[in-house]
Amino acid sequence: MELSVFLKNCWYVAAEPQEIGRHLTQRWIVGEPVVLYRTEDGQPKALEDRCPHRRASLSKGTLVGDEVQCGYHGMRFDTQGRCVHIHGQDKIPAAMCARAYPVVQKWRWIWIWMGDPALADEALIPDLSYNDTPGWTVVGGTLHVEANYQLVVDNLLDLTHETFVHSRTIGNAAVADTPMESEVIGQEVHVRRIMQGTPAPPLFKRVRGLQTIDRWQLIRFQPPSSISIDARGYPAGSDDISQGLRWFSINAITPIDERSCRYYWTITRCFDLDDQALSQLIHDQILATFMEDVEVLQAQQKLIETDQRGRPEISVRADLGSVSARRVVQRLIEQEAQPAAGAGHA
Amino acid sequence: MELSVFLKNCWYVAAEPQEIGRHLTQRWIVGEPVVLYRTEDGQPKALEDRCPHRRASLSKGTLVGDEVQCGYHGMRFDTQGRCVHIHGQDKIPAAMCARAYPVVQKWRWIWIWMGDPALADEALIPDLSYNDTPGWTVVGGTLHVEANYQLVVDNLLDLTHETFVHSRTIGNAAVADTPMESEVIGQEVHVRRIMQGTPAPPLFKRVRGLQTIDRWQLIRFQPPSSISIDARGYPAGSDDISQGLRWFSINAITPIDERSCRYYWTITRCFDLDDQALSQLIHDQILATFMEDVEVLQAQQKLIETDQRGRPEISVRADLGSVSARRVVQRLIEQEAQPAAGAGHA
Amino acid sequence: MELSVFLKNCWYVAAEPQEIGRHLTQRWIVGEPVVLYRTEDGQPKALEDRCPHRRASLSKGTLVGDEVQCGYHGMRFDTQGRCVHIHGQDKIPAAMCARAYPVVQKWRWIWIWMGDPALADEALIPDLSYNDTPGWTVVGGTLHVEANYQLVVDNLLDLTHETFVHSRTIGNAAVADTPMESEVIGQEVHVRRIMQGTPAPPLFKRVRGLQTIDRWQLIRFQPPSSISIDARGYPAGSDDISQGLRWFSINAITPIDERSCRYYWTITRCFDLDDQALSQLIHDQILATFMEDVEVLQAQQKLIETDQRGRPEISVRADLGSVSARRVVQRLIEQEAQPAAGAGHA
Repeated sequence: MELSVFLKNCWYVAAEPQEIGRHLTQRWIVGEPVVLYRTEDGQPKALEDRCPHRRASLSKGTLVGDEVQCGYHGMRFDTQGRCVHIHGQDKIPAAMCARAYPVVQKWRWIWIWMGDPALADEALIPDLSYNDTPGWTVVGGTLHVEANYQLVVDNLLDLTHETFVHSRTIGNAAVADTPMESEVIGQEVHVRRIMQGTPAPPLFKRVRGLQTIDRWQLIRFQPPSSISIDARGYPAGSDDISQGLRWFSINAITPIDERSCRYYWTITRCFDLDDQALSQLIHDQILATFMEDVEVLQAQQKLIETDQRGRPEISVRADLGSVSARRVVQRLIEQEAQPAAGAGHA
Repeated sequence: MELSVFLKNCWYVAAEPQEIGRHLTQRWIVGEPVVLYRTEDGQPKALEDRCPHRRASLSKGTLVGDEVQCGYHGMRFDTQGRCVHIHGQDKIPAAMCARAYPVVQKWRWIWIWMGDPALADEALIPDLSYNDTPGWTVVGGTLHVEANYQLVVDNLLDLTHETFVHSRTIGNAAVADTPMESEVIGQEVHVRRIMQGTPAPPLFKRVRGLQTIDRWQLIRFQPPSSISIDARGYPAGSDDISQGLRWFSINAITPIDERSCRYYWTITRCFDLDDQALSQLIHDQILATFMEDVEVLQAQQKLIETDQRGRPEISVRADLGSVSARRVVQRLIEQEAQPAAGAGHA
Repeated sequence: MELSVFLKNCWYVAAEPQEIGRHLTQRWIVGEPVVLYRTEDGQPKALEDRCPHRRASLSKGTLVGDEVQCGYHGMRFDTQGRCVHIHGQDKIPAAMCARAYPVVQKWRWIWIWMGDPALADEALIPDLSYNDTPGWTVVGGTLHVEANYQLVVDNLLDLTHETFVHSRTIGNAAVADTPMESEVIGQEVHVRRIMQGTPAPPLFKRVRGLQTIDRWQLIRFQPPSSISIDARGYPAGSDDISQGLRWFSINAITPIDERSCRYYWTITRCFDLDDQALSQLIHDQILATFMEDVEVLQAQQKLIETDQRGRPEISVRADLGSVSARRVVQRLIEQEAQPAAGAGHA
C-alpha cells in the first residue's frame, strides 16, 4: 500500500470551532502549514502560514482588523492572502501573496479545502449532519496520532478490532465472530454488522443497563476520511430502540503529514440529552477506548515504516470495507493528477 | 569501512533466558522486529513481530496456549508462524504467515538465527562454554549501545584501550606498552598479550590483593560477534594461578540496526565461587568499566556518521586482530550473498 | 536561495577567549568537529576532533603538555596534528595526522580558518576593532540558534524587523517607516538608515533618558558573516552625541551545520564606561531582544525546510542589503570552488 499522496481537492477538518477566534492558530494539514483565524464578523479564514517574503511564520504575527500582519517585517495580508501593506514602500509586488484556503464551518467542525480553490464547493463537505441535529447531544474531542491517517480510517471500517482492543468498553467476542457486509455506493463505502441476541459490551451495560441485545453497526465512509457509525443496541428481540442505546460515532481524520494525523471525533446521542454525568461518562469511556487505538496504530506505523521486505499485506473478509475505501481515495487521487481534473470528488 | 550489511546466516544472542517467558517480548535484531516467548513446555520461540495482515505488533497481543494472538484483529499464529485462526472466517489464506526464526537456549543465552531457517544448525553456535561450566560462577548483564556492533567488536579485540579508558579498574600502562600477537584460525581470530612482571591493575588488587603480576589476555573471536577473553593474573614468576585471578570475559554483540546494538556480557570465574560480595564487586566494577566504553563508542559512532571526507582509517599494529575479524565477517557476508550459499559459516 | 554550501577560506569565530584553556573543548563548525585548547604558553590551537586512527573523539582525551592524547588508544598529536606517539610501536604511519586549523585570538574572539591553511592570513580577519578599543567597554555573549547562519545575517542587515519584533526595547514605528540606503564596497555591504526627529525607542529612554531623537544605524557587513552596527541616538537637532547614546552592536555568526549556528554578539559603548549596573542592563535587554529574534528565526528555518513548492522569495526594497551580502558570499563560494582559487576573499 502506498501511503504517500494526499487528496487535495476535498474538505478536511481543520479545527474545532472554539479553537479558532480573534487570534492566529497554526495547523499543519497534508504537509502544509496553515494559519487560521476569524474575521471581525466571525468568519473563519485560512492562509498559508509562510510569509511570501522570507518564509516567516505568519501565525507568530498579529491580527490587525481582518488582516494578518507578519511578525517579522510587518507585511500585511488580507483574507484572500493579498499583500496590502509593506512598511517603507508604496509599491507592492504582485507576487507578494500568501495562499488562501477556502474554509467553512459546518457540522460542528471547521473544514478546509487544500486543493484548487476554484473547485471548492460546500456541497462536497461530507454529510456529518448528526453532529448538529436538534434532539441529539454531542461529546467529542481531538486526538493527535503518530500514524498515517489511512490507518485510522482502516481501523474504523473494520470494527472486528473492538473485540481485541476494546474489551473494557465497547468490544466483546460477538463483534469479531459476526461477519460484516460491505457495499460501495458511488464514492461512499457502507459496512454493516448486525449481531442478534448477543451480550451487551461493558459500556452498553453501564450506559443503559443492557444485558442481552440485538446490536447494529452501520458504518458510512465518505472520502477522503470521514466515518460515521450508526451504533444501536436494544433488548434482544424487542426491536425497541427506546429501551436501548443509539448514538453516532462520527470521525474525521486529517493528515498532518505522511506519518501523523489529527483525529476529530464525536459521539452524538438521542437519549437522556440533559444528563451531564452521562455525557461525561461517555466522553471519558470513548476517549479511553480511542487511546487504546492510538497505541495500536502508532506501533503499526513504526512497523510499516521499517518493513524492508515490502511483502504485500494479506487481507481477509473483514477488510473489504477498508480496502474499498482505499480504492476510492486512490482513484480520486489519480483523477486529481489528471490535467483536466473535474470538480473535487463530485 | 562499510558498516552497513549484516550477516544473517549465523546465531546472534537474542535475550538473556530470564527475560523470555510466558509473555511476549519485542527485540529488534539486524533491523527486524522479533517477538520472543516460551511455549507451555518452556521452549523459547521467535516470530517476526509484524502481523502479516496489517503489520500490527504481535508483541502487543497475547499468548494463548502456544499461539500468539494479534492484539489488533485477533489472528492467531502457531510457533511456526502459520496462521491458525481468523475470527469471522474459516478459510485461512496460505500467505497469512509470520516469519518464524530458529531459537536455541545455550551457554546461558538465547540465540536466534536471522537467516535461512533451513541452514540453522546448533553446532554453529559460538563456543562460549565457560558461561555454563561446573566449577565456574557467572555475573553479567546487557547494555544498549548507540553504536554499530562492529565498533564494540573492535573494542574487545584491541585491549590497548584499557590503559586509556579503564585506568580505574582493569587498565594500566603495561597493557598499551606490551605488543600483541594475532592469528587467524579458520573463521576465528585469536589475539594474545602476555605481560611479565607488571603492576596489577586496580581491580586485580581489590579482588585478589595482587601486586606485581604476570598477566595474560587470550582473546578469541568467533563470528559474527562473540569475543571471549581468558584473563589471568598471578604473582610474577610464580606460574601459580591458584594464588591469582582467572576469569573469562565473555561478550556477544547483537546488532539492533546499523547504528545501535545490544551488548551481552558475563564474567565467569573459577575462584571464591560462593563469595556473593565478591560477585557483586566484580559485577559493579565491570559494568562501570563497560560504561566507559559505551561513552567512547557512542561518540565514535557520531563522528563516523558525520565524516564527509571519507578518508580511510589508519591502522596500527594493535589493530591486527580487529582488522582480521572484520575481514572474516566481510567474507562471510559476501559468501552469503552468493546464490548457492552453503550452510552458515561452517 | 541555496543555503547549502559554506565558505571555507575565511575566518569564523570559534569561541570566546575564556571558553578555551588548558582543557579540550569541542565545537562543530561548518559541519566539522573541532577540538580547541591552549598550549602551555597560552596560544589557542585547533585540530579536527576525529582521531585518524578509528574516529574517536579527541576532545574526550587529555592534554599532555601541548599534545592531545586520544582517550581511546592513546595516540598523541602535536599542535600541527602530527602523530608523535603510538603505544606499543615505534613507527608512526605518515598518514596518521589530524587536520590542524589556523587559529587566532583577535578583537575579543577566537577565530578559526576552516579552509586551506596555506591561505590563512590574519589580515583577512574582519575588522571588528571596536570590540577591543580603549575608551570603549563591552558586554556580550553567545547564542545557539537552530537556523541557517544566513538567516541571522539577513536579520541584521534589515533592521526593519525591530519595529515588529523588538518593540519592547530597540524598535518603534520610525524604523520600519524610514527607508534605508545600501551600498556594496568591495566585498563589504554597507546599509544606512537615518531617522530625524523620531521618538526614542524604550531602551534608549532607559539608558540615556532620551525622548525625541535623531537616530542613526550604520551597518557594515564583512564576509562571511560579520555585521557591526554603529548605532547613534541624540536629542533631535542637537548633533551632540555626548548628550546621547552611541554603541556598536557587533555580531559574528558561525555555521554549526546547514540548520544551526552559533551567534556571537557584543555591545560596545563609549559612555559611562564604569557603570556596572548600566552594563548589566544593556546586556540583559539586548539578550532579551536577540532571544526574540531566535524565536522568529527558528520558526522561519522550519518553514523553509518544509516548503515543498519552492516558490522564489519575494524581495522588497529593505532587502537590498541582505541580498547584496548573499551575493558577495555566493560569489566567494564560487571562486573557492575554482581550481586555482586565490588567497581567501582578499
